[in-house]
Amino acid sequence: MDIGTAAFIGTGLMGLPMAGNIMKAGYGLRVYSRTRSKAQPLADAGATWADTPADAASGADVVITMVSDTPDVRDVLLGENGVRAGAASGAIVIDMSTISPRATREMAAQLAEIGVIMLDAPVSGGVKGAIEGTLSIMVGGPVEALERARPVLETMGKNIVHCGDHGQGQMTKLCNQIAVANHMVAAAEAIVLARKAGLDVHAMIRAIGAGAAGSWAINVLGPKMADHDFAPGFMVKLLQKDLRLVLEAASELSVPLPGTAAVHQLYAALEAEGRGDEGTQALISVFERLAGLRD
Amino acid sequence: MDIGTAAFIGTGLMGLPMAGNIMKAGYGLRVYSRTRSKAQPLADAGATWADTPADAASGADVVITMVSDTPDVRDVLLGENGVRAGAASGAIVIDMSTISPRATREMAAQLAEIGVIMLDAPVSGGVKGAIEGTLSIMVGGPVEALERARPVLETMGKNIVHCGDHGQGQMTKLCNQIAVANHMVAAAEAIVLARKAGLDVHAMIRAIGAGAAGSWAINVLGPKMADHDFAPGFMVKLLQKDLRLVLEAASELSVPLPGTAAVHQLYAALEAEGRGDEGTQALISVFERLAGLRD
Repeated sequence: MDIGTAAFIGTGLMGLPMAGNIMKAGYGLRVYSRTRSKAQPLADAGATWADTPADAASGADVVITMVSDTPDVRDVLLGENGVRAGAASGAIVIDMSTISPRATREMAAQLAEIGVIMLDAPVSGGVKGAIEGTLSIMVGGPVEALERARPVLETMGKNIVHCGDHGQGQMTKLCNQIAVANHMVAAAEAIVLARKAGLDVHAMIRAIGAGAAGSWAINVLGPKMADHDFAPGFMVKLLQKDLRLVLEAASELSVPLPGTAAVHQLYAALEAEGRGDEGTQALISVFERLAGLRD
Repeated sequence: MDIGTAAFIGTGLMGLPMAGNIMKAGYGLRVYSRTRSKAQPLADAGATWADTPADAASGADVVITMVSDTPDVRDVLLGENGVRAGAASGAIVIDMSTISPRATREMAAQLAEIGVIMLDAPVSGGVKGAIEGTLSIMVGGPVEALERARPVLETMGKNIVHCGDHGQGQMTKLCNQIAVANHMVAAAEAIVLARKAGLDVHAMIRAIGAGAAGSWAINVLGPKMADHDFAPGFMVKLLQKDLRLVLEAASELSVPLPGTAAVHQLYAALEAEGRGDEGTQALISVFERLAGLRD
């Protein structure tokens, strides 16, 4: 069964351009968002507004959710007037939010009871990747459902990887966030030492970024750290939400993560300053304070 | 004054191929090494053996040192029968070892008293980069001396960056090692969580390595961690030596480095098992033990 109509729930900074790319590829789109005005650009382009997630899901072959956290996904899928109340048997629910792997497995089981197949498909690549349709998409769930949904996913992303059964897409995303978080410490400690030692920080990044010390973090966010450009590509408060998911999943599996736990605490120092809406590169501020470079 | 003859002191795993590349470019080479047999391949290729560092330095336009640690460099340069006793006024000493920035400044001052110019020029890129002549070279000292020495450096490396005055090449290398060390924690924590969660670790690395979670460490050493391939590209004991230099320099500058200090301690657990000669990717073993995946 080919997919003709998609429903999209959650049109925030990421969801809005993702839904737009689905429409541009020619799919019919039904859209629901907690704040209706945020979905207006899609309605203007011909999407059908739905008053509830159930309404959005009715008549859609695939239902995509892109909301903030585990309770939001649960509410949208299984709550009153949720997707479960409107989705037809055989429909595919694709949750592209980053949430708990365990909760994902539980919700997939509940949806399976009414013949709805769930895929977890969290993404990396940020707002830039969402706009350009170049997200990395980490997929958990039945591979047949992924293959049916692939044409829709390909309107949003490039690197689409099947990671295993329900929840394993989320687990892969959590591994991604472990690396992202620890790389920020690597970059911040290198930069604060360089600054206090009197090095040209940009030259230092050029000298080390192409070799064994290289990372996306130091090469892309390092220069922003050096220039104190804290405009968010990815917000501190969202990384902190993800790190809570990481530490919760790791605790369930008895996996001590001393590095990641420490980064989580260092970011708490930024949140204590009320800076949760800044970009994750603002971590340099914590190290600058530790090193006496600011009050 | 063009450089015609180079002296090379220290022909270990790195120094031997580096010296070989200088010879291949047509320079005359005088060579000294603590263990004479290690320099034999160079002598066989036409290099002149010297019985002491002073002897190696006499008649050389440039003297390159590639030894283990700060005391070794001091001994070779300023000790009895050291370079200082043989080098002509106007010669350039290039120390390509990774050592203390402060000690580098002190030695540069002592050599300047006899008209010898010192450059610090530590490298990254490992044995592979040394053999292929593709090292990154981080240079501190007078830029005029760097320009005179550049043709010789270009036989050994590609990315040759002037980082500032005496010691700033070493300082840049220490920033490099901060990133290298913290990236190993990022990779190890992601991989141990993935393994215990039942993910295909290689698939996880492919899913996350191309995006914002990407690093040289996870893409090159991550697969070795997954396969328990601990053959050394860069040995644990040498990284630990470098991290001691990092923490010493940071302490002198009052720069707290909580992440790097923690990595140094985690690597101490590998040394406690007598595994200092393994590759740095062996850090995964520490996390596997913490997670109960081995005794």
